[in-house]
Amino acid sequence: MNDVVGLISHVQNAYARCIDSGRLEVWPDFFEESCTYKITTADNFAQGLEAGVIFANSRGMLLDRVASLREANIYERHMYRHFLGQPWIVSEDAGEVRSETSFFVARIMRDGTTDVYATGRYIDAWRLNGGAPRLRERIVVCDSSRFDTLLALPL
Amino acid sequence: MNDVVGLISHVQNAYARCIDSGRLEVWPDFFEESCTYKITTADNFAQGLEAGVIFANSRGMLLDRVASLREANIYERHMYRHFLGQPWIVSEDAGEVRSETSFFVARIMRDGTTDVYATGRYIDAWRLNGGAPRLRERIVVCDSSRFDTLLALPL
Amino acid sequence: MNDVVGLISHVQNAYARCIDSGRLEVWPDFFEESCTYKITTADNFAQGLEAGVIFANSRGMLLDRVASLREANIYERHMYRHFLGQPWIVSEDAGEVRSETSFFVARIMRDGTTDVYATGRYIDAWRLNGGAPRLRERIVVCDSSRFDTLLALPL
Repeated sequence: MNDVVGLISHVQNAYARCIDSGRLEVWPDFFEESCTYKITTADNFAQGLEAGVIFANSRGMLLDRVASLREANIYERHMYRHFLGQPWIVSEDAGEVRSETSFFVARIMRDGTTDVYATGRYIDAWRLNGGAPRLRERIVVCDSSRFDTLLALPL
Repeated sequence: MNDVVGLISHVQNAYARCIDSGRLEVWPDFFEESCTYKITTADNFAQGLEAGVIFANSRGMLLDRVASLREANIYERHMYRHFLGQPWIVSEDAGEVRSETSFFVARIMRDGTTDVYATGRYIDAWRLNGGAPRLRERIVVCDSSRFDTLLALPL
Repeated sequence: MNDVVGLISHVQNAYARCIDSGRLEVWPDFFEESCTYKITTADNFAQGLEAGVIFANSRGMLLDRVASLREANIYERHMYRHFLGQPWIVSEDAGEVRSETSFFVARIMRDGTTDVYATGRYIDAWRLNGGAPRLRERIVVCDSSRFDTLLALPL
């Protein structure tokens, strides 16, 4: 296996663990200070539409989002479980790797019901930072165009 | 990790990406010119029944299938998202690798509903072709014996 | 990729194949003679509650469980399909590795219906035994607190 695949797999695993264990305050640390985070749909993405359901362009905005989630107390009502495919390396140079990774997220509600919450792919640009990659850009392209109103939560 | 596991993981990832992104015309390129592609059920497979729900024994037949799907316009009505386990290497020599890989396929309909479409395992024989593996045989063994009538689509 | 990740991935894959193919009698061989196997819920685990839904502390108890399952003929009525995330290595020394691995298990009933049976994580301690790891401890932490009464089956 390619070393880059191993490196990106590892950080993706860490990212999923962070969200799945509810440590939301750590989640922004996976991003560069100046970054793009967007959630959109496959239809919108294919049509080149810029608008996303969620959009942030700095780590500060991600921190604000986490604070709002905590305040609204939404996150406590359910949890996520992420499953990721092997990253596909689109390009790599000394400083940056672009990758695409399929995801599947199950949602477990407080009453115990479990459903398929979302599937899609991460389209990512990682700054390598000498072995500690952080996201310069993550576009979360959800396969379905039907969004649950709870989609204020990180994917 | 074994190099062979890495190599087969990589080509499986490419195969899944091909179908999930709707590039059906490229799908037959994952097979040798003379090949076997079969979809069957775990029950039939365990009983040694030869007949499959779908059967093809050449790349040409796979191309014909894709052409029919495009004409029938079926594929445009939904999409797939594949998730694959790590390949299990059953045997390997200089020219060929046999592997088994679990799969889980989510289906996303145009109205946005997502369901578990199929689970099962790929039983594969890969010609290595000096680092560019292609399928000499793929038997898709679906766990469930209940098939959706839409199962004209590649798995 | 780290060698330990590859080693643990491989044995996890073997474990999943064992259960998914119905070879239950082989399942206890993945454990040390003296071992802990426990199934619990995320809620109970977070509260530090010791009691699990299922508990065994020797390979013999696991063998007894398999015998009961065969006698009750429960296992024949459905099958499982496991999907595992990449193992997260919590610690490692010469003799033992601790890891956490997300799991997703689909259940396929005899009538063909497929559902999301369980999601969660394995919290494991592996004795390495010079390259043939076995479980000294596996705590299966299920995300959902709602358990199907059929949960006599190995996870």
